[in-house]
Amino acid sequence: MGQILKLGERQQERDAAVTPAHLAQRDFGSWTDAVEQVASALALTAIERDRNGGTAWVERQVLRESNLLKLAVPAAFGGPEVPWPTIYQIIRRFAEVDSSLAHLFGFQHLQVASVTLFGNPEQKASLLGRTVSEGWFWGNATNGLDTRTTLTWHDADGDNAAHFELNGIKSFCSGATGSDMINITAPRSADPADRVFISIPTNRAGVTVLDDWDNLGQRQTDSGSVTFDKVRVEAHEVLGPPGTAGTPRATLRTLVSQLILIEIYIGNAQGALLNAWHYTHEQGRPWFTSGVKRAIDDPFTQQHYGDLRIALRGAIALAESAARDLQHAWERGDALTAEERGLLAVTIYEAKIVAARAALDITSKIFEVMGARATAAKYGFDRFWRNVRVHTLHDSLDYKLKDVGQWVLTGDVPTPSIYS
Amino acid sequence: MGQILKLGERQQERDAAVTPAHLAQRDFGSWTDAVEQVASALALTAIERDRNGGTAWVERQVLRESNLLKLAVPAAFGGPEVPWPTIYQIIRRFAEVDSSLAHLFGFQHLQVASVTLFGNPEQKASLLGRTVSEGWFWGNATNGLDTRTTLTWHDADGDNAAHFELNGIKSFCSGATGSDMINITAPRSADPADRVFISIPTNRAGVTVLDDWDNLGQRQTDSGSVTFDKVRVEAHEVLGPPGTAGTPRATLRTLVSQLILIEIYIGNAQGALLNAWHYTHEQGRPWFTSGVKRAIDDPFTQQHYGDLRIALRGAIALAESAARDLQHAWERGDALTAEERGLLAVTIYEAKIVAARAALDITSKIFEVMGARATAAKYGFDRFWRNVRVHTLHDSLDYKLKDVGQWVLTGDVPTPSIYS
Amino acid sequence: MGQILKLGERQQERDAAVTPAHLAQRDFGSWTDAVEQVASALALTAIERDRNGGTAWVERQVLRESNLLKLAVPAAFGGPEVPWPTIYQIIRRFAEVDSSLAHLFGFQHLQVASVTLFGNPEQKASLLGRTVSEGWFWGNATNGLDTRTTLTWHDADGDNAAHFELNGIKSFCSGATGSDMINITAPRSADPADRVFISIPTNRAGVTVLDDWDNLGQRQTDSGSVTFDKVRVEAHEVLGPPGTAGTPRATLRTLVSQLILIEIYIGNAQGALLNAWHYTHEQGRPWFTSGVKRAIDDPFTQQHYGDLRIALRGAIALAESAARDLQHAWERGDALTAEERGLLAVTIYEAKIVAARAALDITSKIFEVMGARATAAKYGFDRFWRNVRVHTLHDSLDYKLKDVGQWVLTGDVPTPSIYS
Amino acid sequence: MGQILKLGERQQERDAAVTPAHLAQRDFGSWTDAVEQVASALALTAIERDRNGGTAWVERQVLRESNLLKLAVPAAFGGPEVPWPTIYQIIRRFAEVDSSLAHLFGFQHLQVASVTLFGNPEQKASLLGRTVSEGWFWGNATNGLDTRTTLTWHDADGDNAAHFELNGIKSFCSGATGSDMINITAPRSADPADRVFISIPTNRAGVTVLDDWDNLGQRQTDSGSVTFDKVRVEAHEVLGPPGTAGTPRATLRTLVSQLILIEIYIGNAQGALLNAWHYTHEQGRPWFTSGVKRAIDDPFTQQHYGDLRIALRGAIALAESAARDLQHAWERGDALTAEERGLLAVTIYEAKIVAARAALDITSKIFEVMGARATAAKYGFDRFWRNVRVHTLHDSLDYKLKDVGQWVLTGDVPTPSIYS
Repeated sequence: MGQILKLGERQQERDAAVTPAHLAQRDFGSWTDAVEQVASALALTAIERDRNGGTAWVERQVLRESNLLKLAVPAAFGGPEVPWPTIYQIIRRFAEVDSSLAHLFGFQHLQVASVTLFGNPEQKASLLGRTVSEGWFWGNATNGLDTRTTLTWHDADGDNAAHFELNGIKSFCSGATGSDMINITAPRSADPADRVFISIPTNRAGVTVLDDWDNLGQRQTDSGSVTFDKVRVEAHEVLGPPGTAGTPRATLRTLVSQLILIEIYIGNAQGALLNAWHYTHEQGRPWFTSGVKRAIDDPFTQQHYGDLRIALRGAIALAESAARDLQHAWERGDALTAEERGLLAVTIYEAKIVAARAALDITSKIFEVMGARATAAKYGFDRFWRNVRVHTLHDSLDYKLKDVGQWVLTGDVPTPSIYS
Repeated sequence: MGQILKLGERQQERDAAVTPAHLAQRDFGSWTDAVEQVASALALTAIERDRNGGTAWVERQVLRESNLLKLAVPAAFGGPEVPWPTIYQIIRRFAEVDSSLAHLFGFQHLQVASVTLFGNPEQKASLLGRTVSEGWFWGNATNGLDTRTTLTWHDADGDNAAHFELNGIKSFCSGATGSDMINITAPRSADPADRVFISIPTNRAGVTVLDDWDNLGQRQTDSGSVTFDKVRVEAHEVLGPPGTAGTPRATLRTLVSQLILIEIYIGNAQGALLNAWHYTHEQGRPWFTSGVKRAIDDPFTQQHYGDLRIALRGAIALAESAARDLQHAWERGDALTAEERGLLAVTIYEAKIVAARAALDITSKIFEVMGARATAAKYGFDRFWRNVRVHTLHDSLDYKLKDVGQWVLTGDVPTPSIYS
Repeated sequence: MGQILKLGERQQERDAAVTPAHLAQRDFGSWTDAVEQVASALALTAIERDRNGGTAWVERQVLRESNLLKLAVPAAFGGPEVPWPTIYQIIRRFAEVDSSLAHLFGFQHLQVASVTLFGNPEQKASLLGRTVSEGWFWGNATNGLDTRTTLTWHDADGDNAAHFELNGIKSFCSGATGSDMINITAPRSADPADRVFISIPTNRAGVTVLDDWDNLGQRQTDSGSVTFDKVRVEAHEVLGPPGTAGTPRATLRTLVSQLILIEIYIGNAQGALLNAWHYTHEQGRPWFTSGVKRAIDDPFTQQHYGDLRIALRGAIALAESAARDLQHAWERGDALTAEERGLLAVTIYEAKIVAARAALDITSKIFEVMGARATAAKYGFDRFWRNVRVHTLHDSLDYKLKDVGQWVLTGDVPTPSIYS
Repeated sequence: MGQILKLGERQQERDAAVTPAHLAQRDFGSWTDAVEQVASALALTAIERDRNGGTAWVERQVLRESNLLKLAVPAAFGGPEVPWPTIYQIIRRFAEVDSSLAHLFGFQHLQVASVTLFGNPEQKASLLGRTVSEGWFWGNATNGLDTRTTLTWHDADGDNAAHFELNGIKSFCSGATGSDMINITAPRSADPADRVFISIPTNRAGVTVLDDWDNLGQRQTDSGSVTFDKVRVEAHEVLGPPGTAGTPRATLRTLVSQLILIEIYIGNAQGALLNAWHYTHEQGRPWFTSGVKRAIDDPFTQQHYGDLRIALRGAIALAESAARDLQHAWERGDALTAEERGLLAVTIYEAKIVAARAALDITSKIFEVMGARATAAKYGFDRFWRNVRVHTLHDSLDYKLKDVGQWVLTGDVPTPSIYS
C-alpha cells in the first residue's frame, strides 16, 4: 500500500472522530475501506494542491493503487460491475474533499462506459480486460464542440498496412495527463455528425498532452489540450460496431457523463457544508448583539444551516433517483427505447439544474455561517464555490431547462447530443 | 353508485383524453377506478364551490360512497390497511382538483390513525371496525393551541354512573360538519400537557358544530368551531392506554398529519401546473414581439415550464421519500425508538419546507405562462394559491426550519409536539 | 362635500392615530387633505367591494367630488398641472387601500395625457378645458392587442356631412363604465399601425359599455368590453395632428401608462405591509416554541419585516427615480429625442420589473408574519396579491426584461409600442 | 507625474474606446481626469496583483501622487471638502478595477472623517492640515471586536512627562502597511465602552505592522495585524474632546464606514458586469442549439443581462440615496439628533443589504453569460466574487436585517455601535 494511502488511514481515524455522522454518507458496501482511505489521502493536501494547480501525480497514484479504477468494468470482462448509483456516491465522496480528483475518477468510469457502449466484443474484451488486469487510468480528448481533429484513411502501401491518420487538437481533455489510454473523438467522414471514438495508448507517437490548464476551479483536472500530429490509428482502434450512433443505448454515454457532473456539484456542496459545520463548532463566534453565547445557538445561524441542508437534500434526492433510473436503463441493454432514454434524460436534466443551483448557493452561503475570519486563505473554503462555478458551465443549463420545459409542454423528449 | 359519481365517470373519460400523461400520476393500484371517479366528481363543481364556500354536502357523500374512507384501517380490524405512501398519493390526487375535500379526506385517515395509535384493543376493535362497517366519516376538534376545553370527572351519583363532562370550545375543527364521529382533545388534569383524545359521536348531546369558517382558501374544509356544553363523555371514550403520550410510536400522529399537509401543497401545485398546461395549449397566445406563432414555442414560456416542473419534482421526491420512511416507522410498531422517530420528523420537516415553498411559487407563477386573460374569475385559477397560502400557515415553517438547522448543528432531533 | 367623503374624514382621524408614521408617505403638498379624505373614504368599504366586484358607483362619485380628476391638466388649459411624480404618489396612496379605484384614477390622467400629447390645439383647449370645468371622468377603449374595431370614412351625402363610422368591440376597457368621455383606438387605414385615438362622449349613440368584467383581482376597474355599433365620429374627434405617431414625445403616452401600473403594484405592496403591521401589533401571537412573549419580538418575524421593507424600498426608489425622469422628458416637449425617450423607457422597464417582483413577493409573504388566523375572509388580506397578480400580467415582463438586456448588450433602446 | 500614472493614461485611452458608455458613470466633476488616470493605472496589473496578494507598493504610490487622498479634508483645514456622494462614486470607480486599492482609498477618508468627528480644534488643524500639506496616507487599527489593546497612564516621572503607554495587538488593520499615520482604538479605562481613538505616526517606536494578511479576496488591503509594544502616546494624541462618544454626530463615523463597504460591493458588481460585457461581445459563443449566430442575440443571455443590470441599478439607487442622506446629516453638524442619525442608519442598512445581495449574485452569475472558457485563470474573473464574499462578512448582515425589521415594527432606530 502506498505511503499516502497509509497517511490517509490516519487522517481517516481523525475524521471519524469528528465527522457529524448524521450528515455524511460513509457506507459504500465492500468498497467502504478503500473509498475512505482514498478520500482521506486526497484530503491531506487538497487545499495546497488547489492553490498550486498542476497535475496531482501522487494522488493519481493513490487512485491507481486503490483498486477502484475498475469499478465500472462489467463482470463479463473481469470487473466488479458496481452499479452506477454506488459509483456516483463514491464520486460524490471524493468531490467532498477533492473535486479535481473526483472528476478524474468519474471520467475514468466514463471512458470505461464508452468502451462498453461503443466497442465490439473484441475491443471490449481487450480494452476492459486490460483496464482490470493492468490498472489502466483513462483520459479523454472528446470535447464535442472542438472540431479541430481530422481522421484520414490511408490505404495499404507496401509494408505499411491500411490505417487512419489522426491530426489536430482537442481542448478540455480532462485526465489526459498521466493516463495510460485515451479516448479521442474525430469525424470519420465529411459529415461532422459521423463522429467516432478512438481508444489508443496515450504514449502513442504523435500524441502530445499539453500542460496548459490553469483555471479558477477544478484546478487539478488536467483539462488542458492534447495535440495529434500524424498519429497512426489502426482500424480496430476505432470503437464499434455499434460505435457511437447505433442505438438509444449507445447514447447513454452522455447521460453517464451528466450524472458525473451532478455528483461533482453535490460533493462540493456537501464538502462545503461539512467544513462549515466544523468551523462553526470549533471557531464560530456569535454576533456581539445576538444575545447567545455559542454560534450554534444563534437563530439565524440555525436557519441558514436548515436552508443549506434542505438545498443539499433536494439535490441528492433527485440525483439518486436519476442514478437509479440510469442503472435501470443500463440494464435494459439493447432493448432500451428512444423514449425510455429520453425520459431518463429529462430526469437527469432536472437533477442537474437542481444540483447546480443548490451547489452554487451552498458553496457561497457557507461563509455566512462562518464569518469574516473564515476567509483566510489557509482554509481554502472558496475552492468549493470555484469548483462548482467552473463545472456548472460545462454545458448550458439554460438550454437544459428549456429542454425540460419543452418536454413538459409537448411530451417530446430531448434529442441526444454530444453533451447530453 | 351515486349520481355524482356517475357524472364523475363521464368527466373522467373527458379528462383521460386530454390529461398530459407524462405529467400526472394516475395509478393507485386496485383503487385507481374509485379514486379517479371521485377526483372527476370533485372536479365537476370545484370552481363554483370554492367561490361559494360552505359545506360540500354532495361531495362529502361522494367520498362516503367511494369506499375510500376506510383505507387506513388496519387489516386486523377489517380494513384494507393501504400503505401510507399510497394514501398520500390519493390525497395529492384529490388536492389537484379540490383541495378542501382532499383535506377532509386526509383528515379522515388522521383520525383513524389517532385511534390506531392511542386506543386500547377494545376501542380499536369497536371504533375502527365500525369505521369500516358503518362507513364513518370522522371530524376533529383537536387544535392543540386552543386550550379552551375542560374535562371534569363526575363520580357516580345514584343512577348516574361515573363519567367525564366536557365543556368549552375548539377552533379550526376541520371536518366536524357532517361527521359521524369526532376526535376531541382536552386536558385530563391541571397539567395542560396531560392532554387526552376523546372519540364520541358528533351528534352527542351538547356538541354544536358551528358554521363559522369563511377563509380565503381551503374554503370547504368546514374548519370552523365546535362548542361543548356539558357533554357527557364515558371513561371508555377517552382513548388509551396507551393514549397520547405513551411511546415514540404514539407521537407518529403529528407526523402522519404533517405529511397530509405536504400532499395538499403538492396536489395544489400539480393541479395549478396541469391547469396552466391546458390553458397554454388551448388559449395561450405568444407575446406580440416574441417572433413565434404558438405560445408553447416561446423560449421564456418553455423556461418557466421547466422551472415549474423542477420545483414540483423536488417537492414530490422529498415527500415520497418521507412517506416511505413513515411507512417504515409505522411498521416498526412499538419498537420504534425516539431517535428513529426524530429522524423521520427531520425528513418530514425538510419535505414540508420544500413543498410549501414550491407550491407557493408554482401556484403564483402559473399566471406568467398564461397571461392576463387567465385571470377571469370563471377559471378560478387563483384558488390553488389561496389554498396553499392558507394551508402553509398551519404551523410555523420558520420554526420547522430552525429545528432542521438545530439538528444539523447538534444532531438533536426535534421534540414531538402537538403540531409535529 | 359628499357623505362618503365626510365619513372618510372620520376614518382618516382614526387612521392617523394608528398609521405608523415612519412607514407611510402622507404628504402630497396642497393636495394632502383631498387625497387623504378620498383614501379614507375608499378604505371604508374596500374589502366588501372587492368581494362583490362590479362598479364602485359611490366611490367613483367620491373621486369626482374630490377635485383630483383634473390634476394632470396643463395650466394652459386651466388645470393645476401637477408634476407627474406627485400624481404617481397619489395613485400609490389610493392603491394602498383600493387598487381598483386607484387604477381608474390613474387612467383618468392617462386619458388626459393622451389628449395632451396627441390633440391639436383646438382639441386640447376643448377637451382639457372641459375636463376641468365639467369635471369629466374619462374611460378608455384602447387595448392595442384587440384589433376588432374598424373606422370607415363616409363622404358627405346630402344633409349628412362627411364623418367616420366606428364599429367593433374592445376588451379590457378600464374605466369606461360611468365615464363621461372615452378614448378609443381604431385603425385609420388598412395598415394596423396607423392607429388613431378618438375622443367621444361615452353616451354617444351606438356605444355600449358591457358589464362583463369579473376577474380575480382589480375587481372594480370595470375593465370589461365596449361595443361600437355604427358610431358616428366626427373628423375633429380624431386626435391630431400630431396624433399618435408624430414625435418621440407622442410615444410618452405608453410610458405614462407604465408608471401608473408600477405605482399600482407598489401601492398594493405598501397596503399589504401596513395591514400586516397592524395585524402583527394587534393580533399577532408568537409561535409557541419561540421563547418570546410578543410577536414583534420574534427574530424571524423581525427578519421578515426587514425583508418586506427592503423589497418595498427598492421598488419605490426606482419608481420615483423613473417618475422624475419622466417629468423631465415631459418638460422637454417636442425637443425630446428618440434616444432620450428610449433611455427613459429602459429606466421605467427596470422599475417595473423590480416593482412587480417586489409586490408579488410582499403581498404573498405578509401572511407569514401574521399566521393562520389572518386568512379569515373578513380581513380580505389576499386582495393585495390578487390585485398585483392580475395587474402584473398587463404586458409581458419577460419581454421587458429582454428589452433591458438587449439595451445593456447593444445600447439600442426599446422600440415604442402600443404597450410601452 | 509618476510612471504608472502615465501608463494609466494610455490604458485610459484604450478603455474609452471600448467602455460601454451607457453602462458606466465616468464623470466626477473636476476630479474626473485624476480619477480616471488612477483607475486605469490600477487596472493595468489588478489581475496579477490579486493573484500575488501582498502590498501594492506601486499602486499605493499612484494614489499618493493622484492628489485624491485629501478629498474629505474640510475646506477649513485646507482640503477640497468634496461631498460624500462624490467620494463614494470615486471609491466605486476604483472598486470596479481594483477592490483592494479602492478599500484602502476609502479607508483613507474614513480616517480623515474620524479626526474630523472626534478631534479637538488643535488636533484637526494639525492632523488634517498635514494630511493635505504632506499627503499623508492613513491606516487603521480600530477593529472594535478585537479588544486586546491596553492603554495605561503614566504620571510624570522626572524628565519623563506624563503620557499613555499602548500595548497589545489589533487584527484586520486595513491600510496600516506603508501608512504615514495610523488611527488606533484602545480602552481608556476599565470600561471597554470607554474606547478612545489615537492618532500617531505609524513609524512610532514599538509599532509593528505585520505582513500576515492572506485571504481569499480583498487580497491587497493589507488587513493584517499590528502589534504595540510599550508604545508611547502623548495625551494630545488621544482624539477629543468631543472624542468618540460625545454626540450623535460623532457616531456618524461608523455610517461613513458602512457606505464605503457598500460602494466596494457595488464597484465589484459593476466591474464584473463590464468585464462580462466585453467578454460576451469579444469572445462569447452562442450555445450550439440556440439557433442564433451571436451570443448577444441569445434570449436567455439577454434575459440574464437584464437581470444583472436591474440588480445593480437597485443597489446603486439605494446607495446613492443613502449617500445624499449622509451628506445632509454631515452638514447638520452638532444639530444632528439621535433620531435623524438613526433614520440615516436604517437607510444605510437597507442599502447595504441590497448591495451585498446584488453583488454576490452578480459576481457569480456573470459566468453564466460568458461560459466555460471564461474560467481561465488569466482573466481573473472570479476576483469580483471573492472580493465581495470577503467584504460582505465585515459585519453581520443578519443583524442588520433584524435591526431594519425592528425599526419597521417599533419605530426604534438602531443603537450606534462599533460597527454601525
